[in-house]
Amino acid sequence: MPETVAASNPVLAAPTRGRKGHLTRQAILETAVDIASAQGLEGLTIGRLAKELGMSKSGLFAHFGSKLDLQLATVDEAGEIFLAEVIRPAMQAPRGMARLWALADCWLSYVERRVFRGGCFFAAAGAEFDSRPGPVRDRIADKSRQWLGSLAIAARQAQQMGELDLAEDPEQIAFEINGFDLSANWARELLGDDHAFVRARRATRRRLMDAATPAGRKAIPTTESISN
Amino acid sequence: MPETVAASNPVLAAPTRGRKGHLTRQAILETAVDIASAQGLEGLTIGRLAKELGMSKSGLFAHFGSKLDLQLATVDEAGEIFLAEVIRPAMQAPRGMARLWALADCWLSYVERRVFRGGCFFAAAGAEFDSRPGPVRDRIADKSRQWLGSLAIAARQAQQMGELDLAEDPEQIAFEINGFDLSANWARELLGDDHAFVRARRATRRRLMDAATPAGRKAIPTTESISN
Repeated sequence: MPETVAASNPVLAAPTRGRKGHLTRQAILETAVDIASAQGLEGLTIGRLAKELGMSKSGLFAHFGSKLDLQLATVDEAGEIFLAEVIRPAMQAPRGMARLWALADCWLSYVERRVFRGGCFFAAAGAEFDSRPGPVRDRIADKSRQWLGSLAIAARQAQQMGELDLAEDPEQIAFEINGFDLSANWARELLGDDHAFVRARRATRRRLMDAATPAGRKAIPTTESISN
Repeated sequence: MPETVAASNPVLAAPTRGRKGHLTRQAILETAVDIASAQGLEGLTIGRLAKELGMSKSGLFAHFGSKLDLQLATVDEAGEIFLAEVIRPAMQAPRGMARLWALADCWLSYVERRVFRGGCFFAAAGAEFDSRPGPVRDRIADKSRQWLGSLAIAARQAQQMGELDLAEDPEQIAFEINGFDLSANWARELLGDDHAFVRARRATRRRLMDAATPAGRKAIPTTESISN
């Protein structure tokens, strides 16, 4: 079990074994997403996964009939973790600018806390598969679109509540916040620059404060990382 | 020869063959960067490159003794293309806010024109190698740092010329512009969204206009894509 997932989520601290002592599909997938976030989905072979889990290849083939099956199941599992670590915590914040801020903040926190060994799973998988047409790429793109959509919906709700200037384009705000997130993930993973998270929060706060109405500015929390 | 490089750079329109009819090292590397930008540097095998070029593997081994040699030479060649396609055109703009804008604009144009088959070579290679310590990762990181540094230097020069507010942090501006660029590359390559370039230019212009002094605002061109 990767220590990073375990550290951020105590219920994942030990692999779950079924009645016959085999690792469950769920426990296998948690390790699979972790390998894939660092080594890529193409680097996630049945052999490598078997070695890391101390399982036989045939034991893994009982769960996943092919590499494609394993890749798709791994993307889905990463999506579940993303929901649990980013989307659901952010949804605790009140609708409006508070939630828009929380989405950006929770995303940064999820990379900062190393929920996945290699930074954001979807940033890595997206870069790996963007030139490889097929079901894996489509699945990654769908989930990435959902993330951008979550930001845009939160911005639109903030407009409906009178907290975000109606002249602002919710998709434009989503694009920019996503950019600060990608820039932080890139600087941390490639350049080892942890200060990038400070920069990303500063950029996001400034952008949202500029776009907010007076009521919206009051709704943006001054404390950060509600998911920590 | 990839049509995308050829389209943007007429001098690369046909592979250059040496006296014995063999492809030159330079021509080989131009194809190598193109394959690597789409399939990854790990996907750039001697076998695959030989097939795409119609050369023998032994002919390629005469130029590159190992996969590592080929990967490092490919990163260096991508760096040369980046200099020619992004940095040098931007340096034609006058020092100050005009040049800072030009750096962002030329970067976007370089992805938009598909100088590389798979979008920004360094965004793809960075995501692929950020979890793989070694000389290839270090080389990619060095060149990525130079890019961020170019943006920060341009911002600092704009401050020295009284065109950028002294309260702004040049590294913060570089971080944000890099974020808009990464967001555009991601949206285009993964989601097929060409409108992302409009969004990135809008975000960059807005950020620079906010940060500029009155003299600086006049220096930001209203026309775009000077490298097109």
